[in-house]
Amino acid sequence: MSLSEFGLIERYFRHCGVAREDVRVGVGDDAAVLECPPGQHLVAAMDTLVDGVHFPHGAPPDSIGYRALAVNLSDLAAMGARAAWALLALTLPEADEGWLSQFAAGFAKLARLHNLALVGGDTTRGPLCVTVQVLGHVSGSAMLRSGGRPGDALFVSGTPGDAAAGLALEQGRWPESGGTQYLRERFLFPTPRMELGERLREYASACIDVSDGLLGDAGKLAAASGCGAEIVYADLPLSEPLVRVAGAERAHELALTGGDDYELCFSVGPGQLAQLLAQMPPERWGYRRIGSLRQAPGIDLVRDGAAVRLPPSGYDHFAGTGR
Amino acid sequence: MSLSEFGLIERYFRHCGVAREDVRVGVGDDAAVLECPPGQHLVAAMDTLVDGVHFPHGAPPDSIGYRALAVNLSDLAAMGARAAWALLALTLPEADEGWLSQFAAGFAKLARLHNLALVGGDTTRGPLCVTVQVLGHVSGSAMLRSGGRPGDALFVSGTPGDAAAGLALEQGRWPESGGTQYLRERFLFPTPRMELGERLREYASACIDVSDGLLGDAGKLAAASGCGAEIVYADLPLSEPLVRVAGAERAHELALTGGDDYELCFSVGPGQLAQLLAQMPPERWGYRRIGSLRQAPGIDLVRDGAAVRLPPSGYDHFAGTGR
Repeated sequence: MSLSEFGLIERYFRHCGVAREDVRVGVGDDAAVLECPPGQHLVAAMDTLVDGVHFPHGAPPDSIGYRALAVNLSDLAAMGARAAWALLALTLPEADEGWLSQFAAGFAKLARLHNLALVGGDTTRGPLCVTVQVLGHVSGSAMLRSGGRPGDALFVSGTPGDAAAGLALEQGRWPESGGTQYLRERFLFPTPRMELGERLREYASACIDVSDGLLGDAGKLAAASGCGAEIVYADLPLSEPLVRVAGAERAHELALTGGDDYELCFSVGPGQLAQLLAQMPPERWGYRRIGSLRQAPGIDLVRDGAAVRLPPSGYDHFAGTGR
Repeated sequence: MSLSEFGLIERYFRHCGVAREDVRVGVGDDAAVLECPPGQHLVAAMDTLVDGVHFPHGAPPDSIGYRALAVNLSDLAAMGARAAWALLALTLPEADEGWLSQFAAGFAKLARLHNLALVGGDTTRGPLCVTVQVLGHVSGSAMLRSGGRPGDALFVSGTPGDAAAGLALEQGRWPESGGTQYLRERFLFPTPRMELGERLREYASACIDVSDGLLGDAGKLAAASGCGAEIVYADLPLSEPLVRVAGAERAHELALTGGDDYELCFSVGPGQLAQLLAQMPPERWGYRRIGSLRQAPGIDLVRDGAAVRLPPSGYDHFAGTGR
């Protein structure tokens, strides 16, 4: 492998996003120079994917490139922000051109979809690890985790649990059957809910992205809001493939505790609720009410009329799951 | 180790930088929300340090935390930007509290010096690797690599080569003697030239930070400017400890090709030269003229009146040095 670092970056990443007029200096100088739109706030997120931790060793490179961007976009969606620019720090054991070209294609696919420019970053040698930093804008107030109030309705977008099932399938822990391709795709190529997040700013009192499992992330939203929450077991939105592949009981469990969904969990106050449901029909926007915030701390799962207190069991890199 | 990821971040990084009024939302939500000053451009850099590649395995944690920020600040200095905010992505094999507290102390020391707020990031489990993303501002035009013209004077700050000698000492490749502590410190705790960079915007036609070796980085500045350069061997600024420890010949070689200095290399046009030297005396600001840009491409080293064409031999992660 004789291509230099600089050649690699040049070749695969210079045209990895879109060209934007607000990029004064992009990849190739010591730093990027960018124009912030007047009157808006800058929103910044940064997430890392580690080989064998956040994706299986040997995962498809286009999925790794796509997901490294998706997980960051999802953070911006949770704030109600619109994405503009990204920086990419890629650590690689070797400069494999086939791998790089697929990785870049996965990244570029999602970048183009959200009009995002790749403006800088770093390529280094070492164990495979990808950090992406995304910058975006929000006009007015960003959605925070902390704005929920007791009595607010609690919602989730999409069908959580699918990605965790997809990961189990990717890792060969579950047998193949009908519907498994759909679930794999939900893990490999999750959909950051950018448009939903941007629109929800008008209605939601609080929002968080569901990356570590719905239960844990809803718990974080509730705790940041000084509340607890009740989640209704029967109201969890489950995909048909998930129920078919996992069975109903395990599907509910995955919807509550599986990670990597990159959906949005949000609360809406009584004053905004009717307007939300009228202006953004749940069927069209793909979200569903799963419960409510309440004054008492902690999360209860309401099943068959009985409430069961649940331990906070979100995804945690250094405790429990070993991830 | 039972502290959760979230507890770790909270404990060590929440107060790792300064509090700034332009941070609307810092660590703890899905993303940070920041106020860009009107009329200024945003400047963004991101660099990664990998264990055993960019620092010796077992390096002091405070140095790793400090350097992870310093290498990024140096990129901002090269643009003439002032730093404001940083995000930190830390991948760790285990959550060692002693290590984390020293790492955070090293990071915080430099952050406080430059009025920088740590506003977000990610902590993950995996082989030790640190990515920092720094955001800053520049009013007016940033310095680019590409603005140099034939005939411009070429300068470098500080005494390049020191850090490479310091690394050799840290790795036990060189014997200890008088002056070695100074050289080690130059590797472990380099000084990003923030004030110099910000002031140079008035005078410099082009600027780059010297991270990969003076020869390679001067070559990048010259090439980006569509020029070549002559560097005068006798004019290389060498520290007394470097000459003492390495000898004159090896000291010159390290000044040309050693990495990790994080000094600035810059060019100044004839129209600005007298003003630069008068307004920013080299002795006070710690920089020195080392040659000139010229029309013919490539870099010549002028020694004892003879010019020798040098191969571009900058630091390169995937070719040559094996880093």
